[in-house]
Amino acid sequence: MENQSTVVSFGVRLASQVRRLGNPVVVGLDPSLDLIPPAFLSGGGPSAAVERFCLAILDAVGDLVPVVKLQSAYFEVLGGDGVHAMAKVAASATARGLLVIIDAKRGDIGSTSAAYAEAYLGPRAFLPCDAMTVSPYLGWDSIEPFLSVALANHKGVFVLAQTSNPGARDLQFATVNGKPVYQLVAEHVARYDQAEEPSLGLVVGATFPGTAEALRSSGARSWFLVPGIGAQGGSLDTLVRFRRPDGLGALLSSSRALTFPDRFGGAAAWSEEAVRSSTRQLIDTVVAHRAA
Amino acid sequence: MENQSTVVSFGVRLASQVRRLGNPVVVGLDPSLDLIPPAFLSGGGPSAAVERFCLAILDAVGDLVPVVKLQSAYFEVLGGDGVHAMAKVAASATARGLLVIIDAKRGDIGSTSAAYAEAYLGPRAFLPCDAMTVSPYLGWDSIEPFLSVALANHKGVFVLAQTSNPGARDLQFATVNGKPVYQLVAEHVARYDQAEEPSLGLVVGATFPGTAEALRSSGARSWFLVPGIGAQGGSLDTLVRFRRPDGLGALLSSSRALTFPDRFGGAAAWSEEAVRSSTRQLIDTVVAHRAA
Repeated sequence: MENQSTVVSFGVRLASQVRRLGNPVVVGLDPSLDLIPPAFLSGGGPSAAVERFCLAILDAVGDLVPVVKLQSAYFEVLGGDGVHAMAKVAASATARGLLVIIDAKRGDIGSTSAAYAEAYLGPRAFLPCDAMTVSPYLGWDSIEPFLSVALANHKGVFVLAQTSNPGARDLQFATVNGKPVYQLVAEHVARYDQAEEPSLGLVVGATFPGTAEALRSSGARSWFLVPGIGAQGGSLDTLVRFRRPDGLGALLSSSRALTFPDRFGGAAAWSEEAVRSSTRQLIDTVVAHRAA
Repeated sequence: MENQSTVVSFGVRLASQVRRLGNPVVVGLDPSLDLIPPAFLSGGGPSAAVERFCLAILDAVGDLVPVVKLQSAYFEVLGGDGVHAMAKVAASATARGLLVIIDAKRGDIGSTSAAYAEAYLGPRAFLPCDAMTVSPYLGWDSIEPFLSVALANHKGVFVLAQTSNPGARDLQFATVNGKPVYQLVAEHVARYDQAEEPSLGLVVGATFPGTAEALRSSGARSWFLVPGIGAQGGSLDTLVRFRRPDGLGALLSSSRALTFPDRFGGAAAWSEEAVRSSTRQLIDTVVAHRAA
């Protein structure tokens, strides 16, 4: 596996992993200290608690889903110790055969983006990571280092096109010659990576099925990382609009509803079984929607 | 000083500090391992080298300028140890009486932005920091936590409006009802913080004097953090277009030309004296342009 991962592109590995597991669900790790069950909090300080909690989630769902997504903010808020914990969680996920997306939404001028790209996607990255999220506000030269470093190292990138929050409308619907920003982003990414199974994808929120449909009907083959189902209001009924004709291409990401089932999922108390059960339930629903 | 910083707004502290030092120059710390002189590299690993280099810069210029800006990417690339080093450098800068801007360009959906805001601007931030940079791609709800946490804690935010790189044109010139994205950002920030001396500012690149002039002539009082002079092609001759009528309001940020004078400034070799001399030279030029 080690060897294969150095020669097979992220896109091909992703497609193969989704086929193998039979579902495209991404479990998001947003280990907010405000939400982690008290049992995890004793001993070793907050970063140890965050690490223990994330490893328990990996124990619960590591054999069910193809991908996990680590939200950098909840590690970063704990400073250097939190970043060390994020690296350990990523290493554990990788060792279990999961693909790892770091949700960092980085983006800067070219020379600084190059440093960020090396940090997460380069051969000496500080943590094992298969793909990361990138914000395109600074334009094409600002995302170039991420795209090129990713392709050179068989990694992936998901560039923010249309995010799942209500504020997504504020700037992502702005236009250049009549074309909305999210479409310009999608076209740029598609031009950059014309592989049959692309490694460079887009973030397209579940709350914007119209955007997904517009992009797919204009021929986009990119993988979409799709946040926003459930709590944020995105509906699984629209899932078909996010997929490619081959049925692949849409990664459904869910975080709190899966990992905090006691708070957001109706479970009486937090347990690995409750996390596993909420994840299984989402997988079953997604698979049923695919069959439909 | 400790006490004052908890009760006086960032905007007021910034104006007072710029007046006291007599210049608005920001020394940017971009401690790329590829550029740091070999003398710093031995002993303690890369994060120790980065820390030593940054402390040497603070020794060289800490009494000359009002503000230093730490570019997160060059610390982050070293993982948790690098983030620990960033915190130590920020603490040392604060202890010397410098204001500290963390250039992190974060931005995410609201709940995640809240975690980022707590990380850098909250009462339990992992490092001392007076202000940070924020990217608005995800819209107003995505930057709200940064703005509100900053104001509640007497800190500041610089929201990317028009960046200094050529790619700034790609998305920041997109329009909504004829108004460019950078202007929407400026208007939103001005509406949010109507203090006479605002704490919420904008990033406006030196390479876009037309943007600065348009924003100033429409009455914007926000502080502009202005990167891009020198290497990126921004000219000090246009500086007056970035300032408010009272002569304040424009922070001029320079990184490599000041901190790597051997590579980007014509000095024969790196030394604290050469760093100090290149910084003095920029200050003198900026002051001369103010008088003109």
